[in-house]
Amino acid sequence: MTGKKRSESPTALGLDPLALEYSASVSYDWALYPFDVKASIAHARMLGKQGIIPEEDARAIMRGLEEIEGEIEAQAFEFREDLEDIHLNIEMRLREKIGDAGARLHTARSRNDQVATDMRMFVKSACSLVVDGLSVVQGKLLDLAEANMGVVMPGYTHLQRAQPVLLAHHLMAYYEMLGRDIERFSACFVMADVMPLGAGALAGVPYPIDRAAVAAELDFSGISRNSIDAVSDRDFVVDFQYASAMTMMHISRMAEELVLWSGEEFGFVRMPRSLTTGSSIMPQKRNPDMAELARGRTGRVYGHLMGALTMLKSLPLAYNRDLQEDKPALFDTVSVLTSTLEILAAMLAGLEFDHTKMEAAAAGGYALATDLADHLVRKGVPFRDAHQAVAELVQYAEGQGKMLSELTLGEYHRFSAMFDRTVLGIDARKSIESRSVPGGTATQRVRAAIKEARKELKGRSS
Amino acid sequence: MTGKKRSESPTALGLDPLALEYSASVSYDWALYPFDVKASIAHARMLGKQGIIPEEDARAIMRGLEEIEGEIEAQAFEFREDLEDIHLNIEMRLREKIGDAGARLHTARSRNDQVATDMRMFVKSACSLVVDGLSVVQGKLLDLAEANMGVVMPGYTHLQRAQPVLLAHHLMAYYEMLGRDIERFSACFVMADVMPLGAGALAGVPYPIDRAAVAAELDFSGISRNSIDAVSDRDFVVDFQYASAMTMMHISRMAEELVLWSGEEFGFVRMPRSLTTGSSIMPQKRNPDMAELARGRTGRVYGHLMGALTMLKSLPLAYNRDLQEDKPALFDTVSVLTSTLEILAAMLAGLEFDHTKMEAAAAGGYALATDLADHLVRKGVPFRDAHQAVAELVQYAEGQGKMLSELTLGEYHRFSAMFDRTVLGIDARKSIESRSVPGGTATQRVRAAIKEARKELKGRSS
Amino acid sequence: MTGKKRSESPTALGLDPLALEYSASVSYDWALYPFDVKASIAHARMLGKQGIIPEEDARAIMRGLEEIEGEIEAQAFEFREDLEDIHLNIEMRLREKIGDAGARLHTARSRNDQVATDMRMFVKSACSLVVDGLSVVQGKLLDLAEANMGVVMPGYTHLQRAQPVLLAHHLMAYYEMLGRDIERFSACFVMADVMPLGAGALAGVPYPIDRAAVAAELDFSGISRNSIDAVSDRDFVVDFQYASAMTMMHISRMAEELVLWSGEEFGFVRMPRSLTTGSSIMPQKRNPDMAELARGRTGRVYGHLMGALTMLKSLPLAYNRDLQEDKPALFDTVSVLTSTLEILAAMLAGLEFDHTKMEAAAAGGYALATDLADHLVRKGVPFRDAHQAVAELVQYAEGQGKMLSELTLGEYHRFSAMFDRTVLGIDARKSIESRSVPGGTATQRVRAAIKEARKELKGRSS
Amino acid sequence: MTGKKRSESPTALGLDPLALEYSASVSYDWALYPFDVKASIAHARMLGKQGIIPEEDARAIMRGLEEIEGEIEAQAFEFREDLEDIHLNIEMRLREKIGDAGARLHTARSRNDQVATDMRMFVKSACSLVVDGLSVVQGKLLDLAEANMGVVMPGYTHLQRAQPVLLAHHLMAYYEMLGRDIERFSACFVMADVMPLGAGALAGVPYPIDRAAVAAELDFSGISRNSIDAVSDRDFVVDFQYASAMTMMHISRMAEELVLWSGEEFGFVRMPRSLTTGSSIMPQKRNPDMAELARGRTGRVYGHLMGALTMLKSLPLAYNRDLQEDKPALFDTVSVLTSTLEILAAMLAGLEFDHTKMEAAAAGGYALATDLADHLVRKGVPFRDAHQAVAELVQYAEGQGKMLSELTLGEYHRFSAMFDRTVLGIDARKSIESRSVPGGTATQRVRAAIKEARKELKGRSS
Repeated sequence: MTGKKRSESPTALGLDPLALEYSASVSYDWALYPFDVKASIAHARMLGKQGIIPEEDARAIMRGLEEIEGEIEAQAFEFREDLEDIHLNIEMRLREKIGDAGARLHTARSRNDQVATDMRMFVKSACSLVVDGLSVVQGKLLDLAEANMGVVMPGYTHLQRAQPVLLAHHLMAYYEMLGRDIERFSACFVMADVMPLGAGALAGVPYPIDRAAVAAELDFSGISRNSIDAVSDRDFVVDFQYASAMTMMHISRMAEELVLWSGEEFGFVRMPRSLTTGSSIMPQKRNPDMAELARGRTGRVYGHLMGALTMLKSLPLAYNRDLQEDKPALFDTVSVLTSTLEILAAMLAGLEFDHTKMEAAAAGGYALATDLADHLVRKGVPFRDAHQAVAELVQYAEGQGKMLSELTLGEYHRFSAMFDRTVLGIDARKSIESRSVPGGTATQRVRAAIKEARKELKGRSS
Repeated sequence: MTGKKRSESPTALGLDPLALEYSASVSYDWALYPFDVKASIAHARMLGKQGIIPEEDARAIMRGLEEIEGEIEAQAFEFREDLEDIHLNIEMRLREKIGDAGARLHTARSRNDQVATDMRMFVKSACSLVVDGLSVVQGKLLDLAEANMGVVMPGYTHLQRAQPVLLAHHLMAYYEMLGRDIERFSACFVMADVMPLGAGALAGVPYPIDRAAVAAELDFSGISRNSIDAVSDRDFVVDFQYASAMTMMHISRMAEELVLWSGEEFGFVRMPRSLTTGSSIMPQKRNPDMAELARGRTGRVYGHLMGALTMLKSLPLAYNRDLQEDKPALFDTVSVLTSTLEILAAMLAGLEFDHTKMEAAAAGGYALATDLADHLVRKGVPFRDAHQAVAELVQYAEGQGKMLSELTLGEYHRFSAMFDRTVLGIDARKSIESRSVPGGTATQRVRAAIKEARKELKGRSS
Repeated sequence: MTGKKRSESPTALGLDPLALEYSASVSYDWALYPFDVKASIAHARMLGKQGIIPEEDARAIMRGLEEIEGEIEAQAFEFREDLEDIHLNIEMRLREKIGDAGARLHTARSRNDQVATDMRMFVKSACSLVVDGLSVVQGKLLDLAEANMGVVMPGYTHLQRAQPVLLAHHLMAYYEMLGRDIERFSACFVMADVMPLGAGALAGVPYPIDRAAVAAELDFSGISRNSIDAVSDRDFVVDFQYASAMTMMHISRMAEELVLWSGEEFGFVRMPRSLTTGSSIMPQKRNPDMAELARGRTGRVYGHLMGALTMLKSLPLAYNRDLQEDKPALFDTVSVLTSTLEILAAMLAGLEFDHTKMEAAAAGGYALATDLADHLVRKGVPFRDAHQAVAELVQYAEGQGKMLSELTLGEYHRFSAMFDRTVLGIDARKSIESRSVPGGTATQRVRAAIKEARKELKGRSS
Repeated sequence: MTGKKRSESPTALGLDPLALEYSASVSYDWALYPFDVKASIAHARMLGKQGIIPEEDARAIMRGLEEIEGEIEAQAFEFREDLEDIHLNIEMRLREKIGDAGARLHTARSRNDQVATDMRMFVKSACSLVVDGLSVVQGKLLDLAEANMGVVMPGYTHLQRAQPVLLAHHLMAYYEMLGRDIERFSACFVMADVMPLGAGALAGVPYPIDRAAVAAELDFSGISRNSIDAVSDRDFVVDFQYASAMTMMHISRMAEELVLWSGEEFGFVRMPRSLTTGSSIMPQKRNPDMAELARGRTGRVYGHLMGALTMLKSLPLAYNRDLQEDKPALFDTVSVLTSTLEILAAMLAGLEFDHTKMEAAAAGGYALATDLADHLVRKGVPFRDAHQAVAELVQYAEGQGKMLSELTLGEYHRFSAMFDRTVLGIDARKSIESRSVPGGTATQRVRAAIKEARKELKGRSS
């Protein structure tokens, strides 16, 4: 009996065990089961309605598939590697359950369009999941920005203190990055939102199927326009890998700053102890391991992107088995990305900033030099000349071992007669508030940006 | 006098020659000049209008910049490497020409927001250029598809003959791929279409500038919302590299097929001699070098994508000099991509398909086996059983050394009683026409797809 | 009691479950257990001998570790994710078994040098495994070459028939590639063959340990010379990924040819049915899925290489948790590579070449044109002139629709008076035998190459 | 006359200008000229000696080639893009100069083995150049280590202060990394050191050439063993890209630390002003641009590696034009790598460390906690228990806001009765000197390491 079943399975038929092990995918593509079941139900319903298979067979198939989904969810389904992939596992179980009617399910479709359909459903679902995760992190950034609204820190260029900024403004830079990530995942969703079912093996199918009806049931916005392209296209998978790589890149930048800021030298932030680790040998450590792991996993996702691009390079049309390799890396990326967003949200929620250290750092150094140049410009000095005068003044101050705030007006005048008394009042807060251009770091601008962001977030969730 | 000027240039000031050579970018970023001039003119006009610099100085600056652009276009401009980059080259020349007024141009901006603005203008322009190039290639594909409308070829899966398709249908698969590429470049354009000018070094500027006016003059749809993000963001460059990598991937698939098809074994196509090369030692060769080079250059663009992602990994905010590395690879990708699209268009325009060989290949082998299974399904045989019967029939035919068309009805009946006489009439054309599902290879469907595509193309160009 | 144990485990202590899940590695690093046990035994023995811990404690530790290894091998060991990694799992089990003595094992070492040691042992072992796999494939190539010694095929450049060669010669090209791969893995072995144990967390340890003795017991050829480098270095992992990427690249070239050659157009080779698959819809197919999967998995390994490089980019010294990411990709590469070599060996062993088709292909076209040019050169015609004359002759033949073998001496003379009667005797075999330069395709040379290769292989295995 | 010459050039013949521009390589492969000339001279000498061409023609060719090399070096050579590449440019010029004899040079070779030979000579030469550059940087590291021998700094893990180390020890970690880079370039040299000349187009040549003689003249250690492999192999180029990527990775780690250490927060090091830049808007900045550029260019070289691997993926044998793409990236990598090593050497030579800040950082925090645990272990406390006791002690000290050095023996005893008075004397220097295991940070060990390194360096240069 089992022997019979085997011989009905053309893929299992006589495949060398080594080859089976090399090619079987059910150990990972089982994750496609909810999509495979849903797509098969829609396909069967349509086949019945169009009279391509008997309506009662269609009903039996649909019922059987729902039961199978229940079995899988109840972990009562035995995945058989000798049946290669999730698709054949489900189909063979269906035939076990409902007999001959089950043998009609694969009418008017091929594994090629079937797997492409499942994968697109998976990617659409993953896009939504990731967008949710990104929105949660954005929300945490807004919370942090609001909670630390008045905190001043040095803005950096070249990792050197450049100009004072609000911490909230710095945090909002990450809000913007993640916003672009959301746009990329949305674009990926649109790319994936095209149903290939009906493309058959590669040429279309010779049955009067109703592709639009199936697409509607499966929430696809449209159907593929070319059957050869439909089965050979994995662009949407690469798009997902790319959007993920960009997100991980942004997270790696944030992680880098968390690592820097939580070290003794910066000392800007303290992570919640429950998210840091000690050391097997150095008990005093409070290591930012989660940030480091997130940063390290950036490489993993970059690698998956490169792998997908390599796989597709020079591949002739239409379907080639190489395409099976789209899956392990995709599934891994989804897992890395969603877990990283979760841990990131938890980390952000628990950050405690050391306001005193941040403000002291903003006041130290010569971070107000630009403001001095701008002071001169407002007195009519051409910018480049002002810049030059201040450069010399800073050099002088450095030589004297003085902070800018320790200079006298007389000393200022050595470098330009245009300095007036108000120059002595320039400080980090004034510097910040003066930059009230749209997008600038002045408090009102940052408040407005947060407000707009809250609206965006709300709009997305509703 | 020249010495004076040098000392006014803070970057040139005392930089070690080795360091200058290592860091100077004017040898490649000169390509940004039209954008730099345009952006500086808009900036100066606004500074004048807002009363930040004297109106007459603004006018002098604008006039001077126009003259400089003329000099560059007339190749009468001497680029000085000791002035590092295109921006300082232009600014110093301006000061040579108009004196002190020139020293006011850099008021209320920084190299950081200036270069980001230029780069975004460049990328927007490159996106348009590439979309044009892609549209031209799409047009050539349509021409080819129309000119070869009736031609039958074997559709391949696993590079084995699977089912007959129309050559036009196969060509239209590439039309679809390039269509997605256009969407990616359009998305990239939107990402780039945000003006950073006004972000200053990283914190915004302390002047009453009118960012909206500048954006309007420079054809930007919007302005950046966060100054720190504005100067540290190079997402749009990576987006361009990614869209380009995907396009090259598609082209590599097309190139692979051109190489395969023009070899003696397939013999499907002949390339124009003027686009093939001979051999230094084998005079008979007609090598598809252009297709091979296009395929090989795929790696180059993949590499540039990976380079950009690597550069940005773990980079703290805001501007870091690492970002300068966005340029050489971007410029190279634009050049590779536009030249590849040009040569591809030329190749496609000159292709001569060998209809006879293609049709013979479609008729050979057992490419009609699926049609036999579908024949049985239409008689009521469950698909899997039909499939199994035909599998055995093909095995039998192979064993007998017979083509399917050489089998008798009696032989058919050995494998299923359900075969009827019409099975003898199945041929490649009938197979093709039977697949008249939307997106399928039937002639009417392919004609409709071409018509729709023509409309799309026309819509884009108008 | 369990509570006590937890509180002794500093890493498990109070770690947020989310963080634990994000950072725990035991689900994959359990694979290091044989190396971890062996290294700990060597460490404990040395601690005892040096009097750093009591000898009886050392003996208890060693006995305990051996038992634990037995438990793991008997699948009687319960891996606890809350103990993070394989190292702590083993150590905690040891303390369960032998009590306080177990708490002395971690004396004079750190997780940082411990994990680096285990990883190096793993990589060394993996190198040996892969070299064995490569040697097996090389052996199959030699078998094939010998079994098909007399078979003539067209040599290709630009995938166009260029000059006739022996199939055996073509196969030996792959032998050479794999030989270079073996050299790369051997170099990687040498890189990995340096013991870091003793580096402690990063600075060395303050105990009179005997590093040389431990290294000797663990079969390391040397010990690390700088403790900071020792714990932050993962070069040997990247070296392994690189050697693997190169091997997969070579295999992708072979796989590509297997796909091409087994298609109907070339028809050069038939793969064993048990290593090919049918189609869910096209029963006649005999698809080279194993070759396609191998080709597709090339991208996976390339990606892992890129991931490792990305992980290490910009990482400050010494140990950072990012380094944990070296493992999943490494383990995956080992698995992809060893399974691919196995399947490749099986495929090669089962290949049946179609000698007739290959020879016909070698005779067809104008693959002997170079030989005609060489004929003229031997008569004294300068090479470039000979080349030109033959180019014109081929063009003439093409125009006449004639093969070269169908031309008369009279026709030859139209293009050069220097052709003599022997030109009519040139054929594929003569062409092949004439190329008897070392490394050339003449039979004696190929035989000699195979003989030398056999000797190499034997030398490696003994 | 010129027309005649053109028609003799089969590649230039009738190639579409677009195609010529797309395929011509002379704009970059001119860099191969010294190798091309040298290889052609050796080839001609051998042809003459073997009687394959008249001896007097051989002499004329050699003389002509030497003159041409002179012309190129004197910049008196006009490179013609219509002659495609450096090889044809030189050959055509030779024929201009010496007439018919020149037409004999290409006897018994093909562009395929010619270009492979030139490339191998180039790579060998580049390897030597890079090894020299790496040795210079290693020398600077040794100089720095010696000049700062007594300086103490905090060793970091997770970028948190972990244990005190000698700055010299930290610098020597980089010495080790670069040492491995040298080994990789040496291995690459060996891979490249095999002469392909004699492989012809792909099958060997039908002339009695003396490959060994040519190899000897060109300083190749061996000749290729398989002609097909010889013309299709670019492993040595990828090996070079890989060795370069690893070197850039190491440099990116060093650059990252230079950026960190030169910022205000760490304040460990000051770069020479002539190697830092100011800011166009912030005159006070002393930006580590050279380090940032080096770090950024890491991505460029990673990209080139990925490009080369992609190019070779799935490429059938033997020569394909894709291979031409090995060059631009290789030349760029050589230029990036050599200039980066130069600037790095200059930077290192000019570094001024702030000993006071480094030592203060080493004393701050709880970097001596491990030493306390080791103190207990030496009293017989099992390591894990000692570790636990110190963890609690550190927590207590943190709570009290005390440094470890501020605790009384009474306070120590709260956590373990085993602490004795000597615990109060533990300081950074004692900690360092206690780690006198081979490879450890104790002064004598570091001195020994430096001495050994000096010997290595001397050995290499002699």
